[in-house]
Amino acid sequence: MRNKIQLLLQLGILISGRGSNMESILSAIKKRKIPINPAVVISDKPNAKGLAIAKKLGVQTEIIDSANYKGKRQQYDKEIISILRKYKVTPTNGLVCLAGFMRIVSPHFIKKYKNKILNIHPAILPAFPGLNAQKQAIRFGVKFSGCTVHFVDEGVDTGPIILQEIVKVSNRDTEKTLSKKILSKEHQIYPKAVELFARKKILIKGRKVKIQD
Amino acid sequence: MRNKIQLLLQLGILISGRGSNMESILSAIKKRKIPINPAVVISDKPNAKGLAIAKKLGVQTEIIDSANYKGKRQQYDKEIISILRKYKVTPTNGLVCLAGFMRIVSPHFIKKYKNKILNIHPAILPAFPGLNAQKQAIRFGVKFSGCTVHFVDEGVDTGPIILQEIVKVSNRDTEKTLSKKILSKEHQIYPKAVELFARKKILIKGRKVKIQD
Repeated sequence: MRNKIQLLLQLGILISGRGSNMESILSAIKKRKIPINPAVVISDKPNAKGLAIAKKLGVQTEIIDSANYKGKRQQYDKEIISILRKYKVTPTNGLVCLAGFMRIVSPHFIKKYKNKILNIHPAILPAFPGLNAQKQAIRFGVKFSGCTVHFVDEGVDTGPIILQEIVKVSNRDTEKTLSKKILSKEHQIYPKAVELFARKKILIKGRKVKIQD
Repeated sequence: MRNKIQLLLQLGILISGRGSNMESILSAIKKRKIPINPAVVISDKPNAKGLAIAKKLGVQTEIIDSANYKGKRQQYDKEIISILRKYKVTPTNGLVCLAGFMRIVSPHFIKKYKNKILNIHPAILPAFPGLNAQKQAIRFGVKFSGCTVHFVDEGVDTGPIILQEIVKVSNRDTEKTLSKKILSKEHQIYPKAVELFARKKILIKGRKVKIQD
């Protein structure tokens, strides 16, 4: 008889900038003792401010510079996968969080890490997918917007939804003030989604996600 | 010198069925003394249950049977306009509310009554436009949905948004339970939008609606 060893889940976070969602996730893991190990933060920009923050929080960092992979999306993503594997963030025992990562991930990467890649989007999907969601919301004149944590699939912001949160849009809101309001909700639901994933409370059925109590 | 006489705003409501939103609007007008006269309820179905309810509430009713106008959308809408005029629901002194009216209104009608036709949609637009919005929401797996009162323009549920309201979607919700939750919010915001319109609190700028305090 062999003992089944339950390995601690390994987390990889991909960033391009300051990575405020990365920071909220890393803090929550520590504070709430979420059973997941922040294994590595990978940036596609050498000067991403989030790199210093990750280091300060004791997390290993890697840079895979986008500039060296122009027009080579699949090759880039193979490099990401190889770095993730180096840190044991595998499809069977890993979770990948996109946190302001400004590249489109390839179908190859998505297939390999099916339902293991999370993203956050600053709108109540399916409203306002794609870039500049807050600006889209202001221009459309909605009275509510919000944010969505979802699994990444091959579409643009179309994957199964884990959590959403709402903010009110007032007459006076601009793209900037709305972005700020939404960001504070992002910092609540993204760590919460990581926690639900780590505690195995997420059930996926087709494109629907059920959160177990 | 001539006296300027301020005429009371005249309301026309178009229905196809039981018209529960019609009823909520008519009750609110009475209860909250909204300065608008419910002039006429028009149904495109001779057997619409809302007709009896309107009569009971002392509102005149008219039937323009869809069955007699197959493939003649503009002719149908000209007939509607002529009935509206008969009841003084004019583009300058009228408001038209679609309340479960199952016909697409023609560009001719929309142009004539620009920013004078309201509709309610059972989703937080721009999410889930078109038919069966609640079913679309359940299938997509959103965690929030709601309803939207908007001005009718030439697109499908694309006009300037006046009010929106939110409902939470739970794991257990079905199309039926979600529809019920949304409907109760519809009955709140549709009368409120009519009241804002009647009290001249609505400012339209491009596709954006500002509610004045």
